[in-house]
Amino acid sequence: MNNPQLHSLKIKDLGIDSYRENIIFIKADSPVCISEGFTALARVIVHRNNNRIIATLNVVKSDIINNGEAGLSTEAMKRLEVKEGDMILVSHLHPIESLGKVRAKVYGKELDEASYHEIIKDVVAGHYANIEIAAFVSACAGDNMTMNEMISLTKAMMAVGTKMRWEKEMILDKHCVGGLPGNRTTPIVVGIIAAAGLTIPKTSSRAITSPAGTADTMETMAPVNLSIEKIQEVVIKQGGCIAWGGAVMLSPADDLLIAVEKSLDIDSTGQMVASVLSKKAAAGSTHVVIDIPVGPTAKVRTHEEALKLGYYFKTVSEAIGIHSEVIITDGTQPVGKGIGPSLEAMDVLAVLQNKTDAPLDLKERAITLAAALLRLSGQFSLGTEDTVARALLESGKAYRKFMDICEAQGGFREPRFARFRFDVLSEKSGTVKAIDSRKLARVAKLAGAPKEPCAGMLFNASLGKNIKKGDLLFSIYAESNGEMEYAKEYLNSLKDLIHIS
Amino acid sequence: MNNPQLHSLKIKDLGIDSYRENIIFIKADSPVCISEGFTALARVIVHRNNNRIIATLNVVKSDIINNGEAGLSTEAMKRLEVKEGDMILVSHLHPIESLGKVRAKVYGKELDEASYHEIIKDVVAGHYANIEIAAFVSACAGDNMTMNEMISLTKAMMAVGTKMRWEKEMILDKHCVGGLPGNRTTPIVVGIIAAAGLTIPKTSSRAITSPAGTADTMETMAPVNLSIEKIQEVVIKQGGCIAWGGAVMLSPADDLLIAVEKSLDIDSTGQMVASVLSKKAAAGSTHVVIDIPVGPTAKVRTHEEALKLGYYFKTVSEAIGIHSEVIITDGTQPVGKGIGPSLEAMDVLAVLQNKTDAPLDLKERAITLAAALLRLSGQFSLGTEDTVARALLESGKAYRKFMDICEAQGGFREPRFARFRFDVLSEKSGTVKAIDSRKLARVAKLAGAPKEPCAGMLFNASLGKNIKKGDLLFSIYAESNGEMEYAKEYLNSLKDLIHIS
Repeated sequence: MNNPQLHSLKIKDLGIDSYRENIIFIKADSPVCISEGFTALARVIVHRNNNRIIATLNVVKSDIINNGEAGLSTEAMKRLEVKEGDMILVSHLHPIESLGKVRAKVYGKELDEASYHEIIKDVVAGHYANIEIAAFVSACAGDNMTMNEMISLTKAMMAVGTKMRWEKEMILDKHCVGGLPGNRTTPIVVGIIAAAGLTIPKTSSRAITSPAGTADTMETMAPVNLSIEKIQEVVIKQGGCIAWGGAVMLSPADDLLIAVEKSLDIDSTGQMVASVLSKKAAAGSTHVVIDIPVGPTAKVRTHEEALKLGYYFKTVSEAIGIHSEVIITDGTQPVGKGIGPSLEAMDVLAVLQNKTDAPLDLKERAITLAAALLRLSGQFSLGTEDTVARALLESGKAYRKFMDICEAQGGFREPRFARFRFDVLSEKSGTVKAIDSRKLARVAKLAGAPKEPCAGMLFNASLGKNIKKGDLLFSIYAESNGEMEYAKEYLNSLKDLIHIS
Repeated sequence: MNNPQLHSLKIKDLGIDSYRENIIFIKADSPVCISEGFTALARVIVHRNNNRIIATLNVVKSDIINNGEAGLSTEAMKRLEVKEGDMILVSHLHPIESLGKVRAKVYGKELDEASYHEIIKDVVAGHYANIEIAAFVSACAGDNMTMNEMISLTKAMMAVGTKMRWEKEMILDKHCVGGLPGNRTTPIVVGIIAAAGLTIPKTSSRAITSPAGTADTMETMAPVNLSIEKIQEVVIKQGGCIAWGGAVMLSPADDLLIAVEKSLDIDSTGQMVASVLSKKAAAGSTHVVIDIPVGPTAKVRTHEEALKLGYYFKTVSEAIGIHSEVIITDGTQPVGKGIGPSLEAMDVLAVLQNKTDAPLDLKERAITLAAALLRLSGQFSLGTEDTVARALLESGKAYRKFMDICEAQGGFREPRFARFRFDVLSEKSGTVKAIDSRKLARVAKLAGAPKEPCAGMLFNASLGKNIKKGDLLFSIYAESNGEMEYAKEYLNSLKDLIHIS
C-alpha cells in the first residue's frame, strides 16, 4: 500500500458468469472505493503477479463480499489466472489509446492498418468493455468499411491468432457466407476432397445468428473442440478434418466481436470478410472457394450484392496471399430438410451414404463446391472435376473418408432428435410459391437451435412442391416445453412463412 | 407453473450496482435455466404483479444464491419495485421491435419520427441492454443524424418526459454547448434575468465528459435535486432557479443515453441538440439563448462548425415552437480561474459580489448572454439591454436575487477547497501563447472533478499573460492522494498543455 494507486484485495469466487466481460465486484464502502473515488461503471486495472486485466467495476452494497475482498466474474478469474483466496491489486485505468481510434471510426473516419492492429490487440487482451466492442461493431456495421480497412482488419486478426503450419504446399479450404438454413455442404465437401488425396483442414464456426453453424452440426457427429496438435494429427492421417475454429484460437478476436454482434444481431460485411479470411490464413490455407448463396431471404439478397461481396473476398484474399474462387449459388430456399445442428447432420449422412431419400439439392451443391476446389487445385484435367467429385461421393469413398475423419477426431456418434415434436400441417392446397428462410430460421432458433443441438425443424415443403390441405409442411423439434411454446407462439404470429397458392 | 414459460423465483438482494443496467442473477443449475435453456447474456422478462422489466441474465455457479432464488441489480429492483423475499416471475423475452430500428440506423438508414418514439420509449422503460444503447449512440454519433431525425428525436424525448406548466406567457432559458472549462455563466445570468423581473426556471445538467456541469457547480452552493413542485415554488417566488434537470425527469431518456455516451466518450451532435431542446421544451421554455463557444480545443473547434450547430439548434427549436437566438462566443481558453464544481462556484460568487479580483471574462460573458435574453424577450428598448444587464449585476441586485434563489432552493452554502493542493510552476519565462483546454479539463477530471466537487484546478495563466520562471501556472486540488498522483502522472506525460514563449 506504499503506492497510493494500488489496493490489495482478496479474491472471493462469486461464480458469476457475465459472459465475456471482465467484471470486478467491490464493496461500496471499502477503502478502495473511498480513497480512489471509484464508482459504478468505472473501469479499473486488476493485477496478479505479472498478469493484468481491465475490468468494469460493479459496486456491491450487501454482505456477499466484505471490505478487503473483491469478486471477479468467471471470465475475469480465468483471464487473470486466480482462484478464491488469491490476493490481487486494483488500480486506476489509464486511458486506452486504441479507444480513440474506435471513436474516430464511430465518427466516420477511415482507420489505418496500425489502428486496426491496436484495436484488435486490446480487444483480445480483454481491455474493452462490451459497450466499447458494441461501439466498434456498430461503426463497422453493414458496408461501412473500405477495402483497405478490410485488409487491415484481416491482417490485425491474423496477427493475434495462432498460425497453423503444414508440410504440404497446397492447403484447400471452403467457406459459405451462410444465411441459408440447412446449407451444410462442408462435411460432404471435406469427405470428397480428402478422398481425392488433397489436404483440407477445415475449421468452422458456430452459429452467429443462424440456427446452426457447421461446427454445431459436426459436433452432433464427432467432437470438434480439437487442439491444434489434434487437428494436425487428424489431417496428416486423413487429409482433412472439420473442427471448431474457436477452440484453437485461430482468430481469438473474432469470438469476442461475434459475441457482441450476435447479441446485437448486427452484421458487418468488412468484419465478416476479415473474420473468414483471417481464419483461412491462420489455418494455413492457400486455395479457398467462397460460396455465396443469393436469395430474397438469404443473407445476401441480390446478385449485385453477391458480386460486391465476391469482389471484397477476392481482393482481400489476394492481398494476404490466398488464391480464391467465388461461387454464387441459389439461395431461394433452405437446403436439405433439416434446420438445426442434429437435423442437418442427418441430411449430411444421408447424402454421404447415398440414401435414396437423401436431399438432392444438398448433394448437388456439395459436388459443385468440391469440383470448384478440385479446379482451383489444378491437379485434375480441366472439365473433369465435376465427374471426379461425383464419383468420389457416389462410390462411397467420400463417406468412408468422412467416417475415418470422425474416428480420428474422437469417434463418430449418431445425431438424434429432440424430445418434443410438433407437426405443422398445411391449411390449404396448392403449390409452394415462396419461402421465407429468415422466418424459418427464426422458428428453429426459438425452438432451441443451436443451443439445443437436437432442436430445430425438418422442412418438407420445398419450392414448386404440390401440397394438399393437411399435408405436413414441417416438424418442429424442441428439448423443452418452454421453447416449443415460444416457437409456436411466434409461428402463430406469422402470415407469410410459406406461400402456397 | 402451469404456463411453461413462467418461472417463479424469490428475490435475494445481492446489493450489486451495475449502474443503469437491469441484471438478473440466476443459478446455472436451476430449473429455470435448464427448462428454458437460458444462457449467460440472454435477455429475459421479469414480472412482479403488474410491473415488468427486461433484464440481462448473469448465470451464477456459486452459493451466493440458491435454486428458486434470483438476484437483481439495484437498478432492476428499483424499477420492478421489489424487495428481498418478494416473488417474481421470469419468462422468455419476445424480440424488441424497436431494436430493428436501431439496427436500420446502424446500417445507415434514416429513421422516421415513429421509430424514434419507439426507441426512446423502450430505452426509458429499461428494455435495452447497455450494448444496445451503445449501438444506438454509435449510430447517431458525430454528425450522423439528419435534420428531420433531430426533430424526431427531440419530440420523442419530449414525449417521455414531464412537462412543466407555468402561468406566465414568456419563459426564458439559456444553454451553453460547453467544452470550455470554467464557463459557468448560468448562475450569474439567472441572477440578472430574475432581478430584471423575468422568469427563468433553469434546469441544468451534470457533467458528461467535462470536469463540471452547471448542476454540479450550483450544488456546491445550494441543493439542486429539486422536485417539480419545489422548482415551481422557487420560480414563482423568485423568478428563477438553477436546478438539476435529471432530478425532475424532464428528459429521462437523456440520462440513460448519456450514461453510455459518457462511458464511451462519444458525442452525437443530433443527440445533443435533441437533449438540450427536449429539456427546454419540458421546462416550458418559450425563449432560449444558445451559447456556442468556439476554439481550437473547445467542444466546437471552428466557426463553420459553430454556424452549422447554430443552424441545427435554430431549426429544431422553431420546429418544436421555441424562439431562439444563437450566440457564438470566444472559446480559445478557460473562463475564469476555477475548473471543477466548487472552484468554479467561487468564480461565480466573486463576479456576483463584484469583488475586485473577480474574473472579468466570466463577468463579460454573463452580461452578453443576459443582454441577449433581454433582447429576445422584447421587453426592453432595443440597444439598452447590455446596459440594463450590467446595471443589475454591478448594483448587487443580481447577487441578492441569486442568494434569494439559493435560500429558496434550500439554503446557501459556501463552496470549499479539496484537501490536497499541488502547485504547478512555470519552468520558463515568456508569454502564454496557447492553452489546451481539453488537457486542462482532463487534469481536473483525473484529480477527481466532478465526482469530487471540491477537486479540480485554479488556473492562473491566461492567454497573453507574461509569466516568469517559477510563477504559478495553476494549482491542482484533489480529495485523495490516488487522484492527485494520477493527475500529476498525466501532467508529467504532457508537453503542450500551456505554450509559453
